Amino acid sequence: LNKYGTAVLVNIINEVGGFPTKNWTRGTFEKAYEISGEYLAEKYLKARKGCWGCVIQCARVAEVSKGPYYTPASEGPEYETIWANGANTMIGNLEAIIKINYLLNDLGFDTISFGNTVATLMELYEKARKGELPEDKAKKLLSLLQDIEPSWGNADAVIQLIWRTAYRIGIGDYTAEGAKRLAEEFGSPDSAIHVKGLELPAYDPRAINSMALSYATSNRGGCHLRAYAVSFDVLGVPKKFDPLAIDKEKVKLVKWQQDYFAVIDSLVVCKFNTFSTGPEDYVPLLQAALGWDDLTTEELLTIGERIYNVERLFAVREGYGYKDYLPKRLLEEPLPDGPAKGRTAKEALEKYLPYYYELRGWENGKPKPETLKRLGLEEFLYIVS
Amino acid sequence: LNKYGTAVLVNIINEVGGFPTKNWTRGTFEKAYEISGEYLAEKYLKARKGCWGCVIQCARVAEVSKGPYYTPASEGPEYETIWANGANTMIGNLEAIIKINYLLNDLGFDTISFGNTVATLMELYEKARKGELPEDKAKKLLSLLQDIEPSWGNADAVIQLIWRTAYRIGIGDYTAEGAKRLAEEFGSPDSAIHVKGLELPAYDPRAINSMALSYATSNRGGCHLRAYAVSFDVLGVPKKFDPLAIDKEKVKLVKWQQDYFAVIDSLVVCKFNTFSTGPEDYVPLLQAALGWDDLTTEELLTIGERIYNVERLFAVREGYGYKDYLPKRLLEEPLPDGPAKGRTAKEALEKYLPYYYELRGWENGKPKPETLKRLGLEEFLYIVS
Repeated sequence: LNKYGTAVLVNIINEVGGFPTKNWTRGTFEKAYEISGEYLAEKYLKARKGCWGCVIQCARVAEVSKGPYYTPASEGPEYETIWANGANTMIGNLEAIIKINYLLNDLGFDTISFGNTVATLMELYEKARKGELPEDKAKKLLSLLQDIEPSWGNADAVIQLIWRTAYRIGIGDYTAEGAKRLAEEFGSPDSAIHVKGLELPAYDPRAINSMALSYATSNRGGCHLRAYAVSFDVLGVPKKFDPLAIDKEKVKLVKWQQDYFAVIDSLVVCKFNTFSTGPEDYVPLLQAALGWDDLTTEELLTIGERIYNVERLFAVREGYGYKDYLPKRLLEEPLPDGPAKGRTAKEALEKYLPYYYELRGWENGKPKPETLKRLGLEEFLYIVS
Repeated sequence: LNKYGTAVLVNIINEVGGFPTKNWTRGTFEKAYEISGEYLAEKYLKARKGCWGCVIQCARVAEVSKGPYYTPASEGPEYETIWANGANTMIGNLEAIIKINYLLNDLGFDTISFGNTVATLMELYEKARKGELPEDKAKKLLSLLQDIEPSWGNADAVIQLIWRTAYRIGIGDYTAEGAKRLAEEFGSPDSAIHVKGLELPAYDPRAINSMALSYATSNRGGCHLRAYAVSFDVLGVPKKFDPLAIDKEKVKLVKWQQDYFAVIDSLVVCKFNTFSTGPEDYVPLLQAALGWDDLTTEELLTIGERIYNVERLFAVREGYGYKDYLPKRLLEEPLPDGPAKGRTAKEALEKYLPYYYELRGWENGKPKPETLKRLGLEEFLYIVS
């Protein structure tokens, strides 16, 4: 993390075949090395940065000193950004990605959502040209594009699109709504790879199967920060699993991470610490800081579980977001390449989800009344009864 | 005009050495042919267009079918646009100019003002890098540029700049104010080539000397549509002059054109008609349409003269725009190249202006009281007395 930043993951995830490419139609990108953390460090890195007092210093300061992608020394790009705006849109030029990252940050975009939305647009554009969209939708799409040609890998079109999206001009008025609404608008809803409206990050659950459960059950939609199952499926923390093997132990770890991370997030602690610390390490800190002498590790995780349940109760009450699922493409279209060739995420999701609900005390995505009672959340019983 | 559009002028004006290049520091552009009307017709022209019933059909429909400057079939580019955003910024790539033209039209820019403003910015940027701006101004400029490197000929930076200017982001908040204010803001006012705040169009008065008087005395600032002296200095309408010769006959023609064009503009007639018609041709038309039987050509031109004087009176009353001048660069820096090498516009302006005021009955740019009386404009005497 210090040497190459989060982008050290590019080569690692590409090697397990879980580096989503061309809007999630492939699992490896032939230009992965050219957009990797190693390449970044070699060519464009000006400095390393980090929070005050942190020994990791994971942040990058990158610069493109000249040419069409000229970018002053500025923060990033991070792994997720490189992936979403690189492999997923087939852009293999790190200079272009650095500029895209700079503009997105400057204008206040989420780089993961934007990269996915662009990839969705590129797929829609390809379909429109091939006559695979409804005729009126294709016509509308092509006319809204004006002078942009969002073909795979066209970085210049992406740079134009950033501005149009920021100011909702032409097609930008649609891309500003995110991948889900964009794909629905143009008659191809499965071209958007999202869970509950949130675009997925840089790990293909067909190749890293614990992520199937992690994405599906994330309360805020497809996210890698609720349970980072990559840590055990790929990186070996707390222990190494085969990312393609079905193993119920992983379900326990997903639930454990979700609860633990809810605590970590509430403590405003950086998640990178969890690569070397466990919940037990925070118990003495909290005892010392708050005088909370009888706190135990078990109780700390129960606090996390309570948070996770309350989040879910919010979704149940609002009527959106408690149905746990994965995008059709990941369930039905096998990966055509890499170590996970031929795999979908269907089996993992179908086998993991019932056991997960059992562990959580949920039914069809909703906490059971007895679970709320066990957690001392009786005040919310009205939502599930 | 039909075959090559207004851009037929690129090669013509470049050959007389009056094609302003690199923010008016040169009079010829080595890539003129590559941005000419001939080249446009050969490579990018999809159709010709024009007003209903017009035999000229001067408008172009151009397309860039692929690549980074992909632009759908759309109107233009015109000569002035090609010049301002081509030679004057050193962009010799017609595809880039077509895209720039498209974006400027789409966003509602004046392409002449924008191209000049970009050229001014490029000059300021060069000066900032060379240490030729005040230190605090240079620092401010470089920091506002963010990821844009406006070096001569950098079309990609210009495309970025269009959006920033449209939405007043970073340096765009300054370029949106035009060349004059931009140059003043960064401590180099003479880097803006304008008259009365309006950026000059595509004819260098050092090489086409009647334009010196035309620009200086235009009521709305440096403009080629008040007196298009190019028509006699270069194109031979109504008769051909040597564009470098000092000739008082030209002063008469500038005044005559200003008055005639005021009539033409009021009649909402296209100025291209004046290449083949004179004021006398409109007399029978007006007689027939309005029953204005005693109208004469002389009276029609007096109407134009009255308009020109009233415009000027407006400037006098408002206290801005009646001082007739040319930018310092055109008066003091000789052209380094082409047929007009070694020339400035100083002699022409100094010799023409007094005679022009004599013909107009003006003094120091202000109509004299007796002139207003002669024209029947007594109601405005309060402005000049």
